[in-house]
Amino acid sequence: MKRLTQQTLGEEEELSREEWAERYRRVRAASGVICAPLAAEDYVIQAAVEASPAKWHLAHVSWFFETFILCEYMPGYAVFNPAFRSLFNSYYEQVGEPFSRGARGTLSRPTVEEVYRYRGHVDEYLLALLEERAELPWPEILQRLEIGLNHEQQHQELLLTDIKRNFYANPLRPVYRDDLPLPPVRRRPATQWQEFEGGVRRIGHVGEGFAYDNESPRHNVYLQPFRLASRPVTNGEFLAFIESGGYRNPALWLSDGWAHLQREGWNAPLYWERQDGEWWLFTLGGMAPLNPDEPVCHVSHYEAAAYAAWAGCRLPTEAEWEVAAEDCTQEGNLRETGYLQPIVAPAGEGLLQLYGDVWEHTGSAYLPYPGYRAAEGALGEYNGKFMCNQMVLRGGSCVTPADHIRPSYRNFFYPQDRWQFQGFRLADDL
Amino acid sequence: MKRLTQQTLGEEEELSREEWAERYRRVRAASGVICAPLAAEDYVIQAAVEASPAKWHLAHVSWFFETFILCEYMPGYAVFNPAFRSLFNSYYEQVGEPFSRGARGTLSRPTVEEVYRYRGHVDEYLLALLEERAELPWPEILQRLEIGLNHEQQHQELLLTDIKRNFYANPLRPVYRDDLPLPPVRRRPATQWQEFEGGVRRIGHVGEGFAYDNESPRHNVYLQPFRLASRPVTNGEFLAFIESGGYRNPALWLSDGWAHLQREGWNAPLYWERQDGEWWLFTLGGMAPLNPDEPVCHVSHYEAAAYAAWAGCRLPTEAEWEVAAEDCTQEGNLRETGYLQPIVAPAGEGLLQLYGDVWEHTGSAYLPYPGYRAAEGALGEYNGKFMCNQMVLRGGSCVTPADHIRPSYRNFFYPQDRWQFQGFRLADDL
Amino acid sequence: MKRLTQQTLGEEEELSREEWAERYRRVRAASGVICAPLAAEDYVIQAAVEASPAKWHLAHVSWFFETFILCEYMPGYAVFNPAFRSLFNSYYEQVGEPFSRGARGTLSRPTVEEVYRYRGHVDEYLLALLEERAELPWPEILQRLEIGLNHEQQHQELLLTDIKRNFYANPLRPVYRDDLPLPPVRRRPATQWQEFEGGVRRIGHVGEGFAYDNESPRHNVYLQPFRLASRPVTNGEFLAFIESGGYRNPALWLSDGWAHLQREGWNAPLYWERQDGEWWLFTLGGMAPLNPDEPVCHVSHYEAAAYAAWAGCRLPTEAEWEVAAEDCTQEGNLRETGYLQPIVAPAGEGLLQLYGDVWEHTGSAYLPYPGYRAAEGALGEYNGKFMCNQMVLRGGSCVTPADHIRPSYRNFFYPQDRWQFQGFRLADDL
Amino acid sequence: MKRLTQQTLGEEEELSREEWAERYRRVRAASGVICAPLAAEDYVIQAAVEASPAKWHLAHVSWFFETFILCEYMPGYAVFNPAFRSLFNSYYEQVGEPFSRGARGTLSRPTVEEVYRYRGHVDEYLLALLEERAELPWPEILQRLEIGLNHEQQHQELLLTDIKRNFYANPLRPVYRDDLPLPPVRRRPATQWQEFEGGVRRIGHVGEGFAYDNESPRHNVYLQPFRLASRPVTNGEFLAFIESGGYRNPALWLSDGWAHLQREGWNAPLYWERQDGEWWLFTLGGMAPLNPDEPVCHVSHYEAAAYAAWAGCRLPTEAEWEVAAEDCTQEGNLRETGYLQPIVAPAGEGLLQLYGDVWEHTGSAYLPYPGYRAAEGALGEYNGKFMCNQMVLRGGSCVTPADHIRPSYRNFFYPQDRWQFQGFRLADDL
Repeated sequence: MKRLTQQTLGEEEELSREEWAERYRRVRAASGVICAPLAAEDYVIQAAVEASPAKWHLAHVSWFFETFILCEYMPGYAVFNPAFRSLFNSYYEQVGEPFSRGARGTLSRPTVEEVYRYRGHVDEYLLALLEERAELPWPEILQRLEIGLNHEQQHQELLLTDIKRNFYANPLRPVYRDDLPLPPVRRRPATQWQEFEGGVRRIGHVGEGFAYDNESPRHNVYLQPFRLASRPVTNGEFLAFIESGGYRNPALWLSDGWAHLQREGWNAPLYWERQDGEWWLFTLGGMAPLNPDEPVCHVSHYEAAAYAAWAGCRLPTEAEWEVAAEDCTQEGNLRETGYLQPIVAPAGEGLLQLYGDVWEHTGSAYLPYPGYRAAEGALGEYNGKFMCNQMVLRGGSCVTPADHIRPSYRNFFYPQDRWQFQGFRLADDL
Repeated sequence: MKRLTQQTLGEEEELSREEWAERYRRVRAASGVICAPLAAEDYVIQAAVEASPAKWHLAHVSWFFETFILCEYMPGYAVFNPAFRSLFNSYYEQVGEPFSRGARGTLSRPTVEEVYRYRGHVDEYLLALLEERAELPWPEILQRLEIGLNHEQQHQELLLTDIKRNFYANPLRPVYRDDLPLPPVRRRPATQWQEFEGGVRRIGHVGEGFAYDNESPRHNVYLQPFRLASRPVTNGEFLAFIESGGYRNPALWLSDGWAHLQREGWNAPLYWERQDGEWWLFTLGGMAPLNPDEPVCHVSHYEAAAYAAWAGCRLPTEAEWEVAAEDCTQEGNLRETGYLQPIVAPAGEGLLQLYGDVWEHTGSAYLPYPGYRAAEGALGEYNGKFMCNQMVLRGGSCVTPADHIRPSYRNFFYPQDRWQFQGFRLADDL
Repeated sequence: MKRLTQQTLGEEEELSREEWAERYRRVRAASGVICAPLAAEDYVIQAAVEASPAKWHLAHVSWFFETFILCEYMPGYAVFNPAFRSLFNSYYEQVGEPFSRGARGTLSRPTVEEVYRYRGHVDEYLLALLEERAELPWPEILQRLEIGLNHEQQHQELLLTDIKRNFYANPLRPVYRDDLPLPPVRRRPATQWQEFEGGVRRIGHVGEGFAYDNESPRHNVYLQPFRLASRPVTNGEFLAFIESGGYRNPALWLSDGWAHLQREGWNAPLYWERQDGEWWLFTLGGMAPLNPDEPVCHVSHYEAAAYAAWAGCRLPTEAEWEVAAEDCTQEGNLRETGYLQPIVAPAGEGLLQLYGDVWEHTGSAYLPYPGYRAAEGALGEYNGKFMCNQMVLRGGSCVTPADHIRPSYRNFFYPQDRWQFQGFRLADDL
Repeated sequence: MKRLTQQTLGEEEELSREEWAERYRRVRAASGVICAPLAAEDYVIQAAVEASPAKWHLAHVSWFFETFILCEYMPGYAVFNPAFRSLFNSYYEQVGEPFSRGARGTLSRPTVEEVYRYRGHVDEYLLALLEERAELPWPEILQRLEIGLNHEQQHQELLLTDIKRNFYANPLRPVYRDDLPLPPVRRRPATQWQEFEGGVRRIGHVGEGFAYDNESPRHNVYLQPFRLASRPVTNGEFLAFIESGGYRNPALWLSDGWAHLQREGWNAPLYWERQDGEWWLFTLGGMAPLNPDEPVCHVSHYEAAAYAAWAGCRLPTEAEWEVAAEDCTQEGNLRETGYLQPIVAPAGEGLLQLYGDVWEHTGSAYLPYPGYRAAEGALGEYNGKFMCNQMVLRGGSCVTPADHIRPSYRNFFYPQDRWQFQGFRLADDL
């Protein structure tokens, strides 16, 4: 299925309008499915600045379609509520001043029911637009529709990570879903090292599918020879780091990481809890005993880098990861498996769990590729303005939609962030 | 109707058990009536540390009956949920560590429906206890029941002030009730000064009705001759203070008040908004144009003191207020009038609006009366431990239940607090 | 020796001008003596917002004479440096915006030498003014001179408390003076309780000597019968409180005190240090082993109140203290003894150590006396604007000049403050 | 003159011991020269966390020689003061817990005189060690000596930047030196664009001179064709950005930069002040009118990036800068010119002002080069642990010693930092 690159204006659509409408309905419906287990109250809360209320996510993604498509291209379109223009603006300064991010959890209105009506309103007009016969700049509209659908998928992932984070603030430890499938019972395979030659290689988006602007232009990089571990580090391996005093030894840590650890009192990954001498994990299915064979998850860049130092290795760069991923099948424990939690790696040859399970920390700062220019206008704020202070993660996680990930996909978070499903794989020089 | 003093153990009940049950039902029902206009989402939010979610109030007052009566006196009582012991503990350190006050708005569970079930559970057992025939320490139980009912009434007032505060954080300016009665249309009466002789006078709770421990012991004070204004300061009078530069002149302000004003950018009372050159007020009935004849409301102690300095007067002490109130009828614009907003003073002789409309700031710090001792145990934390850094307010407001106020009632807030219905009346030396 | 009340304009001076000049020279010289042991670097630092640099104190008291006397009354006087008007303004908003209090330690200039030149400049002109033959408003000038001299004495006390606080931030534990006299070796006397009748009593400044405006007007108060401990609580007694878990038992603490304790990690008075199982005190003479018989010092109001609750007593009110002090000789371990540290109470009858050793916490909030009005103009900011959020302390300490204390003297600090020489005496109802 | 690479143990020294001693004396003396204009008080203050007191710098660099050379290699060496081990430890966690960085300005002791005695003590023993005839691990010692001398040179630059920053907190605007040479009077040359081919290039330290570990290993990079501006952006050009609303247009800014700008109220570079409609700069020689032809200085990475976006360009990467610098003579307005302020670019061909004047911002995050490993032990903390959240700057400034800069030198600061002499040069794609 053909999709449109974020910045490639002027291409002809190859999907029929009906196919676009169908795809739009499918993506939008998935957001509702994710929220189905929630009570009205669960939609409202925000326990940390980074964990927006579910209600906000549902409204914001609709705002995106309304603001960037309906308001601009639909003749005579009237907004659902003018106050939403600021209220559900995330960070597009060129659209106007966004409502304070940290105060999203103070809003009881619009209610959940009103938000769903807002969604319905936007759906109705968006689908009507797709049936429009008038002369309109369709390539531009469909390009924005493509971005909007990808945008909504990103927020579907955030819905799950934010529900988890917000539930965790509650000592009742609410269970998001008590009907999750049981993960496969198996032992972790031994780590193998896969070697790669150095030289000039190419990275960045290639081909016809959709990609964000930050994945382009495709360009040459020079790599030194390197090797990658065949699978991510596991809970059991990370526990050995903890038990050897890893969280108390500043020699292993980046300076800012050590300061952050001390300020926050970190002594284990997020969602790890020790009860009567045993470690437990908070999951979307409730509290579960720590399985030492599963990939470690919810560790920050700082923790990943400290572990790597302890292990005498390093994290891969994003270029190394992408070059290695070129030959791998793009499959894994993504959202569609339904586990919503990393699972034990299967037996197998080559690089395992490259896609899904956990976003993999890299040693690369999130910076523009050579030749990158952000688009003009508010949509240019989508990715470009975050290219400072953040680190790149690759490969998707157990809550990433399978059709939303690709080898060139660049996710990015601050080095202290832990609330995403984040783990890591070791790398080393040859 | 006889009520029990907070600290007088061992008295015989004079109300029949049926009368107590009836009173319990009546007070409890009022909380539900207050919350009836709320959507589920409205129960969850907390826009400021001091403005707890409605859901939390409803659960906390039930927790109070459960913890201090059912758990202690009802044979075989099993708590509704052991986690609630901490979750809905407000500040009773001797009961255990309370859940963080500022994080109450991060809890989506228990849901509103569960909280009402919790209320029903407590009601069922409490009413069963009142039918208990066994030998139990009834004076003690009924004394705690009395406190519990007064406690719930206090939280009924807080429900209204906190709903107002939490709604105000929302740029949609939600309306709590669009069916409030119209206030009487009239002009404010001119201020008269009522004079009082000095000498030894007595203040503190007297008589048989219920009073909190902080209103006792009744004791002698020595007053200098003084005079009180016949009614509180109005919006129009306060506006003259604003327009004369009151918020820009440090000479009028207490030092801590001036620092607070600068830090917060205060330039008018809370809930005042200027739109197109006109002042509007946010009320429980929505935005309304400022009525210059209504008492000014939602001003802090700092603002009241600055106004008094500007007017060449001072605030009354709590003893002056109480002595003056002795001869006044206890009636006014309290919760039962249904306005939920201060109204213009009626024409009349003597001290007007002493009760209701606005809590009146005094110049008295909230300190123990001579001979005061807090009770033993967790209930001793009810009032005593707050006797530092706060100021006394008197007389109740438009959201205070009429049977909850009395001449000796001491309310107390920090000098920067503004979210209660707080106003003031001028006083002066003779 | 006659002095002028802070607010009594228009009285004739009774001291000759030569006597005033002599007194001016004497007070000013004392500031220099206090600073003599300091290195230039010691004059600069500020380890806490409340502990101003010595250099700043020396300049500020000169600024006070310059601003309120020379600039206003001396014909043709030219300020030493116009920038000092803001730089050395402490908190007189009507003079202009003061330089940020917390940033006083960032100023290396003027250097110490320049500050002494500034002092010399002010002295030269002030003394010349006192020789002036022209027609000038002498009562007003001399009244301000009186205030200025008292003001400088207050800052002499602050010089010592702030030097102590600032030195304490340094792990080298600098010694201010290694030549302090040895305190008398003796055991603490047993606590006796002295009883006082209740009734109408009078407090407030009386007589002809100088007093601050906040000590007036003298007025009636009504006291219940009470008793006072014959001496302040000692280190050994306070240690028993610590060892019984006093710092871990919230039932003993005011609510704000408990919150402060947890935030700051308090587990002992300021300047107490535990080394190898023994307690040591940081003093102006260096580290010294804790003497259990000396009065406990450097405890906040919160700690004093918690101890009193633990002991089943309370703190005296300021009126009780003042009434009790009426019959006591005004002598004690004040600055002139040279110990600069509280010493063990002597044997004796009646109330011991009422003056000197430690400022005694009271249970009274710092509020205006009935009939108090702050003066017009910037000097009216001296005391009045601080009448909120602070508590009264009485009696002076081991660093208070003997001619600066009196029965009616009201000192005031925030309930969390500890860096003054603060202790307390128990009281109780009869 | 041969110097030793930071990590190359085991090489033979080629300088004679006498030459090393001579070099040691020369570098050490330069620190004293820098501090000569300071009063004792000037050595003490710290107006911002990042701007350490001069006294601290002087002691810390001595601590470095003491800790890493004398304590480890000199038989029987006794430390000058054991408390200095923590007090003057900057950030070497493996040496022990460093004294709090932000509290360095609270230390009056050791006094300036004692610090100079400390320096003398270390000098005496260090020079004695260099005359030592015993069998010692000389290559290791001399390698550490080399690092120590470079370390002291870095702190010489920091002395100047920190004195400037600390003086600026003082409204008296102290002048560090009033005898600075007048800069050359000339007009800025027009900007030329110099083009560079792409392809595989090599960067990183090469040759025999000293370099820090973070400049190695030398390695291949792949560059796209690019061009560089012939000179840095000037004050006049930056003023045009300001006047066009650059500080008010979020579309130009990185997201974190815009948030920082709003929080701090930035509207011009650090040290720019507007007086009566004219811009002035605070310099080490005092206040000076803004010269539009001088390079803009004291701008953060955020400001540099915003300007570049406004100009339709970008910042160079560090690899581009280094490749371009290969062919340039290493000379410029470095510390030895004595201006201590950027000057107008000379006329000329090619890349001007590549060295000296201002550190040039790059678009590169400070990350390890491929194959980099930090050294074992505390000295491994020198550079490696800072490889997160910071950006690379290149080329040295007007306060960098001429023999301390080289093409491969990587300086690094946080993107919000402005107190270094930081400017930038534009780059663009071809």
